[in-house]
Amino acid sequence: MINTPYLLYLGHSDDELSIKTSRGLAVFRPDVCVGEFRHDDCPLTLGLPRMDFALAAAAGAKTLVLGVANAGGRLGEDLIADAIAAMEAGLDIASGLHQRLKDDERLVEVAGRLGRNLHDVRDPQPGIPVGNGKPRAGNRLLTVGTDCSVGKMYTTLCLEQGLTKRGVKADFRATGQTGILIAGSGVPLDAVVADFISGAIEQISPDRHDGGWDLIEGQGSLFHPSFAGVSTGLLHGAQPDAIVMCHDPVRKHMRGLPHYQVPDLAKCLEANLRVAALTNPNVRAVGIALNTSSLPQAEAEALCARTADALGLPCTDPYRMGVETILDRLLADAPAPAAKTEAA
Amino acid sequence: MINTPYLLYLGHSDDELSIKTSRGLAVFRPDVCVGEFRHDDCPLTLGLPRMDFALAAAAGAKTLVLGVANAGGRLGEDLIADAIAAMEAGLDIASGLHQRLKDDERLVEVAGRLGRNLHDVRDPQPGIPVGNGKPRAGNRLLTVGTDCSVGKMYTTLCLEQGLTKRGVKADFRATGQTGILIAGSGVPLDAVVADFISGAIEQISPDRHDGGWDLIEGQGSLFHPSFAGVSTGLLHGAQPDAIVMCHDPVRKHMRGLPHYQVPDLAKCLEANLRVAALTNPNVRAVGIALNTSSLPQAEAEALCARTADALGLPCTDPYRMGVETILDRLLADAPAPAAKTEAA
Repeated sequence: MINTPYLLYLGHSDDELSIKTSRGLAVFRPDVCVGEFRHDDCPLTLGLPRMDFALAAAAGAKTLVLGVANAGGRLGEDLIADAIAAMEAGLDIASGLHQRLKDDERLVEVAGRLGRNLHDVRDPQPGIPVGNGKPRAGNRLLTVGTDCSVGKMYTTLCLEQGLTKRGVKADFRATGQTGILIAGSGVPLDAVVADFISGAIEQISPDRHDGGWDLIEGQGSLFHPSFAGVSTGLLHGAQPDAIVMCHDPVRKHMRGLPHYQVPDLAKCLEANLRVAALTNPNVRAVGIALNTSSLPQAEAEALCARTADALGLPCTDPYRMGVETILDRLLADAPAPAAKTEAA
Repeated sequence: MINTPYLLYLGHSDDELSIKTSRGLAVFRPDVCVGEFRHDDCPLTLGLPRMDFALAAAAGAKTLVLGVANAGGRLGEDLIADAIAAMEAGLDIASGLHQRLKDDERLVEVAGRLGRNLHDVRDPQPGIPVGNGKPRAGNRLLTVGTDCSVGKMYTTLCLEQGLTKRGVKADFRATGQTGILIAGSGVPLDAVVADFISGAIEQISPDRHDGGWDLIEGQGSLFHPSFAGVSTGLLHGAQPDAIVMCHDPVRKHMRGLPHYQVPDLAKCLEANLRVAALTNPNVRAVGIALNTSSLPQAEAEALCARTADALGLPCTDPYRMGVETILDRLLADAPAPAAKTEAA
């Protein structure tokens, strides 16, 4: 639907967290990313060739992905000007921002005049049902977090790769715009109407009878005052058999909210298990995933070991150290597929 | 904006819970309701004169309110046929259903041809912010519940009337379609996009410095697998100083979900206080509101007394027995307005 290859947009971003969509694509779909676009004041890079729009078009890029985020997901004047310039150079535009490309008259006018496509990845498909909480057949794992942007998507994708490598059927179920761009399907959960949050997850993770796992991408945090409603509905809709809790050990405060502290790991784990138990009383935690990218290797390993000891769970940095310890725990005490199918 | 007086729609409904919007208007805005419309198979009544559309128009009705609800809030064929007949008789249409009047081509065509207005009360206003969880000045009370449809709106409106009668400034903050029709403003919370649930409540209950109370209408239940996300975001956005928990003592199971039990009162209260504490660590419970409409008076009073004893909180049926005991508790240990203002 969205033409590839992509040119990934960084714009004026100077905050690593704000470019997570662009980076996610660069990491998990490098085959379809020809370059990155950034202004001179942007100190960040994805390690891709820097290109302006004309160069990218000449290199074969078909779509500029506005893979940046900001609170509220608004389209700033700079984004709009850049998107227009990209269309003039021959590119389509894809965006995961809350504010829709198709709601901006200038973008719609230029796209119409030049014959370009505007893709709003954050528009949910119609027909999402109200959740019903009925037990479903199959195995489900959900990543949860102490905060937003702590590695839930990365962890989920690493778990999918790890299970697949072990010969266990596994499917990544995307719930955010980057995940959807990577997986090719999913639901942009934070854009779903509030009454349908859990139903949206029930829909993307239906009954499965092949003994495999649905690996569901988590969103937000039960301890984030802006987004805990999303996380709650996601827990209920996922009815996970297993959760993996993701955490950024150097995060100073909740994302965007200097007046809110990051919760204690044990307290956060307990809260997630308690909420999840409403729709799956057998839910269990199988691991902790730390984003240790800012720590030296030895320190990262020591921190994972200490955390594992403290919580009695495997702890790793999935991207840096792999997910084998978590998979060992997950598969060691998973219910037999037959029993699960019968129960549902 | 919506022309009054109203004709209230019951249609083919045979479930008291499904007509709560029509009944809420009949109870709290009797001055603007001229009659009710029901088919012969509808065993329910609001105690208003039964009228067909022509009779209602002749009696002065300006708008048919489709004050009925069903899971998912869809517009059935019978509702559409009735709405068209009502427009042909001269009435506008107002609806609180999820599925919008303006999304049905037949309704739009008839309304356009006849010059009638279609009002979708469930469409949120644009510009809702992401919640920020910052402490706000003023006093706030939120009604919460063991389930959906257990009397949260009634209780909130009774508390508003009671406080006003005591000379305390109080404002009802509506979060559902009926409440919005009654109050003339508010936010249809279950129709808000998931990322903005708490922000929507912060917006309708901003700083207040007059020593009065915002009385915020609750929605759903932390223990309802379909809607707990909404309830969670509402708790966080409301940052209530006080909560009143509403409960239907004869409810057999969670609304719409025979496979889910109604939670224990103490457990539900504790869960609500725990979630609310994220944005207001000083939150306290000040009462229990039971909907005893199906019980004899003596039994209702005994149940309230037992519940009060068991939980150590005032317990009443607000509509039947008043809210004085809850108001006594609320005002006895409320922080002084000055202290609150300073804190924020």
